[in-house]
Amino acid sequence: MTTPGSLAGGETADDGPASSGGRRSHRVTISDLARRLQISKASVSYALNGRAGVSEETRQRVLALADELGFHPNSAAVALSASRTRTIGIVIARDPALISTEAFYMRTLVGIEQYLNEVDSSLLLRLTGEYGEDLDVLRRWSRQGRVDGFILFDEHDDDPRIPLLQDLGVPCVVVSSNAPNDHAGRLISSPEETVTLLLDHLAGLGHRDIAHISGPFTFVHEQLRVRMLHEHAERRGIRVRHIEGSYRYDDGAEQTRLLLTGPNPPTAIVLGNDLMAVASLRVAMDLGTAVPGEVSILAWDDSPLCELARPGITAIDQKTMERGRAAADLLFRVAAGETDLHEEAPAGELRVRESTGPARS
Amino acid sequence: MTTPGSLAGGETADDGPASSGGRRSHRVTISDLARRLQISKASVSYALNGRAGVSEETRQRVLALADELGFHPNSAAVALSASRTRTIGIVIARDPALISTEAFYMRTLVGIEQYLNEVDSSLLLRLTGEYGEDLDVLRRWSRQGRVDGFILFDEHDDDPRIPLLQDLGVPCVVVSSNAPNDHAGRLISSPEETVTLLLDHLAGLGHRDIAHISGPFTFVHEQLRVRMLHEHAERRGIRVRHIEGSYRYDDGAEQTRLLLTGPNPPTAIVLGNDLMAVASLRVAMDLGTAVPGEVSILAWDDSPLCELARPGITAIDQKTMERGRAAADLLFRVAAGETDLHEEAPAGELRVRESTGPARS
Repeated sequence: MTTPGSLAGGETADDGPASSGGRRSHRVTISDLARRLQISKASVSYALNGRAGVSEETRQRVLALADELGFHPNSAAVALSASRTRTIGIVIARDPALISTEAFYMRTLVGIEQYLNEVDSSLLLRLTGEYGEDLDVLRRWSRQGRVDGFILFDEHDDDPRIPLLQDLGVPCVVVSSNAPNDHAGRLISSPEETVTLLLDHLAGLGHRDIAHISGPFTFVHEQLRVRMLHEHAERRGIRVRHIEGSYRYDDGAEQTRLLLTGPNPPTAIVLGNDLMAVASLRVAMDLGTAVPGEVSILAWDDSPLCELARPGITAIDQKTMERGRAAADLLFRVAAGETDLHEEAPAGELRVRESTGPARS
Repeated sequence: MTTPGSLAGGETADDGPASSGGRRSHRVTISDLARRLQISKASVSYALNGRAGVSEETRQRVLALADELGFHPNSAAVALSASRTRTIGIVIARDPALISTEAFYMRTLVGIEQYLNEVDSSLLLRLTGEYGEDLDVLRRWSRQGRVDGFILFDEHDDDPRIPLLQDLGVPCVVVSSNAPNDHAGRLISSPEETVTLLLDHLAGLGHRDIAHISGPFTFVHEQLRVRMLHEHAERRGIRVRHIEGSYRYDDGAEQTRLLLTGPNPPTAIVLGNDLMAVASLRVAMDLGTAVPGEVSILAWDDSPLCELARPGITAIDQKTMERGRAAADLLFRVAAGETDLHEEAPAGELRVRESTGPARS
């Protein structure tokens, strides 16, 4: 049998940034210092940042060991000296029931939490369910000084959250698909990279007629996905049909059924998330359409669902945990006063599995 | 094709407590009042709780509509009047990478968040990775008055968190498997119910020799699962082998391989979580052991992974989102001064799928 990669053991909390950052050598962390000195991580952090809360003797022990082990505080550890609350805020306006089935959000949040724990900071979290309600929460937490800043997801057109926070003078980082010149800190993952990975793979297998079942077009990242997929496919002589989906299982199932039972079914279907991809695979199999013999299926976001489906679903590993870590790191730097920060999110990787194969002739 | 139940649409944030609580009629929520009056939920909440922050005119409009629609504030809405921070704390000491693949935690957190949002409150969250570090965070948040109380998961023997919080005078609710007389608020889900559901199902199919691959025995709930499974099976003349697992995919795979390739393989295997159950199913299929013809496979916790596996995996729906809601509600009542509160968690239900069948003869 094959052992699914991301689910195989070995990724422990102790490995910290070294393993999830893909670096081989173990980077010394605040946790390491705390363990060696048998004191709390908070004490190590206080000592390193010159804050009250530890004795001078402890401070000297911490600094000596940090020097000995070659500890290099990450940017957050430096930025934390400017932190008032040691807390960042995240307010998500999506159906909570849907969030719980979305590996993307959960892995991103866990990446953020891993990072925050290393710098002894916390997350104030709110799921508001409805778009618009989140503004109210952002405003109140800002006025109450409860957080040092916010990480924003799911950017909309003319997103009101960014000017709101700028007016309130509260730092934010947008996990974003593009880089408008609005002075907001941004962790940017352009869909272009994913589009290129997907189309290289499909073109190499001879596909010339594909369908794309996306998430809601109200999201900026979905608009960009559609546009870039369209442009890049046209350049390669590949036809793409775009169908707006909802990220829900039922929707992936229904749209796939319409495509496969209609005239001229596509030879490949790209689904906007893991759940719709599993739905699509299931419908194809139930209709007796061979996967990948008659239709190839691909997911925009990898997850255990894609990895453990049979056939396994080819997907883009969006490096969501690392992305979460990078967003948190960026926010601390913005909070420390760096402006106009735009950083590239970690590059995604194509995970080729059994759901894609040569186009039917 | 069959549409997986819990993934089918219809469970929207708007449905709120009515849908996830299993009740048919729509219960009026603070969100409903806010939408009808076109004011924020915070304003509704302030008006209902007699707090400053809304005009007298708005307060009267809110109270009139609440009366008209038959709005009954839940216990939290009442308890919130005693709330200082409108924030509850959760500190989880488990490998974050594992948490992100565990549907149990994610759905519980989402249930808690749904509830908190309805009563306009927030969650302060920390994943510490290591057992022991969490004590430090509990102590600091308590001393800093950052939360009104804590929800505790993963109870250990003589768990130091409970006396710590009692000493500090900070309310807590333990999501628990048993009910010791320690005056802590507890949301109790006894494994006995799950054990009965599993054994009724297996006994009815003629199984007399089963294996149980559990989570770590350091957790109180795993110790209880083992003991109750043992006692109830013995009473029915069923043999159970217990093997300590880790909740990890690799471990479910390896232990299943040992069982199925060893002498006298069991006719059914019960796995402690969804990930190990998928691993077990995969290994059985790779070994050419028919599921359920030669071995039946069951999971203690249901999830999309169980639902979407093929064959689908029979599992206990532990009602995790409702459990999260119930825990949050209980905490607000404890914070309002109710003592020795012990409540039963929502009852679980067996989801029979294709991975279980008559015992091989």
